Amino acid sequence: MTSSGLPQNAGPDGARVVAMLRELAELTGDEAGAQRVAWTDVWQTARAFLREQLRELPVTIRTDTAGNQWARLPGGGSGTVIIGSHLDSVPDGGWLDGAYGVMCAVEVLRTLAARGPLPCTVALVEWADEEGARFGHSLFGSSAVAGMLNVADVRELADGSGQRLGEVVTEHGVRLDDLDEARQEIHGARAYLEAHIEQGPVLEREGLPIGAVSGTVGVERHRVTFRGQTAHSGSTPMDMRRDAFLAAAATALAVRDSAVRHRGVGTVGAVSLRPCIVTAVAGEAVILVDQRHPDGGALTAMLGEAHRASTEAANAEGCTVSWEPVFRARPQPFADELVNVVREVCTEFTGQGRVLPSWALHDATQMAGVVPTAMLFTSSTKGISHAREEDTPEEHLRLGVEAFYRTVSHVIARTSAGAGSAG
Amino acid sequence: MTSSGLPQNAGPDGARVVAMLRELAELTGDEAGAQRVAWTDVWQTARAFLREQLRELPVTIRTDTAGNQWARLPGGGSGTVIIGSHLDSVPDGGWLDGAYGVMCAVEVLRTLAARGPLPCTVALVEWADEEGARFGHSLFGSSAVAGMLNVADVRELADGSGQRLGEVVTEHGVRLDDLDEARQEIHGARAYLEAHIEQGPVLEREGLPIGAVSGTVGVERHRVTFRGQTAHSGSTPMDMRRDAFLAAAATALAVRDSAVRHRGVGTVGAVSLRPCIVTAVAGEAVILVDQRHPDGGALTAMLGEAHRASTEAANAEGCTVSWEPVFRARPQPFADELVNVVREVCTEFTGQGRVLPSWALHDATQMAGVVPTAMLFTSSTKGISHAREEDTPEEHLRLGVEAFYRTVSHVIARTSAGAGSAG
Repeated sequence: MTSSGLPQNAGPDGARVVAMLRELAELTGDEAGAQRVAWTDVWQTARAFLREQLRELPVTIRTDTAGNQWARLPGGGSGTVIIGSHLDSVPDGGWLDGAYGVMCAVEVLRTLAARGPLPCTVALVEWADEEGARFGHSLFGSSAVAGMLNVADVRELADGSGQRLGEVVTEHGVRLDDLDEARQEIHGARAYLEAHIEQGPVLEREGLPIGAVSGTVGVERHRVTFRGQTAHSGSTPMDMRRDAFLAAAATALAVRDSAVRHRGVGTVGAVSLRPCIVTAVAGEAVILVDQRHPDGGALTAMLGEAHRASTEAANAEGCTVSWEPVFRARPQPFADELVNVVREVCTEFTGQGRVLPSWALHDATQMAGVVPTAMLFTSSTKGISHAREEDTPEEHLRLGVEAFYRTVSHVIARTSAGAGSAG
Repeated sequence: MTSSGLPQNAGPDGARVVAMLRELAELTGDEAGAQRVAWTDVWQTARAFLREQLRELPVTIRTDTAGNQWARLPGGGSGTVIIGSHLDSVPDGGWLDGAYGVMCAVEVLRTLAARGPLPCTVALVEWADEEGARFGHSLFGSSAVAGMLNVADVRELADGSGQRLGEVVTEHGVRLDDLDEARQEIHGARAYLEAHIEQGPVLEREGLPIGAVSGTVGVERHRVTFRGQTAHSGSTPMDMRRDAFLAAAATALAVRDSAVRHRGVGTVGAVSLRPCIVTAVAGEAVILVDQRHPDGGALTAMLGEAHRASTEAANAEGCTVSWEPVFRARPQPFADELVNVVREVCTEFTGQGRVLPSWALHDATQMAGVVPTAMLFTSSTKGISHAREEDTPEEHLRLGVEAFYRTVSHVIARTSAGAGSAG
């Protein structure tokens, strides 16, 4: 903190980032947590709050065809360094997930704007629908910009009330038929940098406030439907039942066991029954299965085990089972040279350059396929995220702001010196 | 069918009952099944259809403070024989459950009215909310009439959208504060008789179209809530999770195992998770557990085993668990002398007087506590009920109408001869 190499009066203000985050939480959360679910009014309130923070900066603000908001601070040369994260949350989510990275980027832009002419353009991006909480499809905006979003795969996705993604996003200004235009936003991009809370327990366990991210793990996400026979809870003998929920329940336990065996993670976080009443055996059960592993081979093995377990459970209960993919991501390493920059900054600030994988997906996952990418993590209290209890010690949040600013400054310097390219 | 002891031209018309049921199904069902859920517009459509069927009969129609519809066909003497069932269904239910007994009662009233002066009053009752599908509390109307409904227990019950029973039933004419007035409806009642489909496989397996019911089994119905910790599906290591859904899933499997062991039945037909998204470990899981057994001691043992299993599962997952009763009914035998009448009628029609318990609850369960009660079952195809596939061979339905009419006639004769009393 004393060796930033910048005039002290020009440094970023971590306390201001924390204050913006608290104001945002007040504005868009409730007693159950953050409610900034993408494609809702509350989310738009959060986006308007972001524009308000940017109002006095010399930036150009625009929204691309995929719904991402961009704020460009122009500089010399032709290259661009992109910084950002997302404002959307899961329902009953945490105050920091995504919002921390966006507000860090705001503070970095403010500090850079005050510092004087830049050797390259710096663009803040606030990605649309990172979480996929409403329609089950994560990384909407960053996938579109990376050219990895197939409109046909998402247009008909339905939310819990039966509304279609294709119609809902149109109300929020997205033009699905022109989605490819959003790819132009990264023309000339030399680097993508994102600050985020870890959402896991590693840094806290090791007593570290910040760390560098090596990449994101692979993800297999499927909708699994069991079909049996709806029947009366009282008058249907146990040996005549075809209970879809019991097949789903046994599969959920098997998904966990497989994850433990392979040292990955596996979750059934959502289930719905039909008819879902106390007086009927469920004729249909749908579960959403999420499996993750840093190693592609191990992930494939976990998926195979879950498949087999679901078939065995379905057979045992006299049900059928079918699998549909909802989202898949291969393990995605970040750019070594940028990860090294983050690691060196962490060493400068903490004495330790810890490099760790991210078990959560990020928009950085999609960016890493098309632009050299790196991330900085701050610690997460008890490793809890996607919950109102999500938190990080304030001194870690403030240190993260300074470390992120230092990282961006180093990358700007490298970029203007000609290193790194989007190719 | 040739030995009814009544003039052939005065007998009940089973085909007319089937025709009324088909018309009702057309009017109030859809491709997913019957939709006559109590306290909905569709249910009111069904009730208006019933009034239409009664229009040309010399009956007095009224609705009591609990929302039950009564149609009284006056006769001599002071006693009353009550016949009826319910029109409400579960969502996506079957066309016969409840509606069959109501339409049987209509046909019996029509036949009796045509036969001439009656030695006692015969009252048709159409009970309000037998299923409890919307608020989880079964046998609303018959419990009120039997003096077994505690208003404080039900007023605040919420449906899936958070609406309260107390407000919703008021819109349907129920007066919760005057519920006790409904008890007067059974003043002078000498018998309660109900025709219903079996909803189970016993009669079909034995090749019988009809049978007599000995009583209803005991029921324990509870809401079980597991609380763990909502956490990110990706970044939360397996050994740090407190997954409420896994505790619920293990409990559901244990409820089944316990039922099999005791030769009872046990079902988890409803589950809800919070937040119920693919990217979060569920922090809360609520299941509805339904357990039944003809023997009270065995039922208590099943409940104890489920309790212990839920505690073990919660401990294993680092969760807490709490149980709340939703509905409980002791095993309820019917009146021997009336069961014998039904059994003898079955023997007359089929050569076999099969007596079987009902694993489904009925309004007859509540009536049996205050009025001598019996039921007649018709077979159920594959034993399926509470589902659109629910069915009964048409000849069994028609035979059931004739047997029910014969039963009612015998009971009227006994009643006017002074046997049986509500005491």
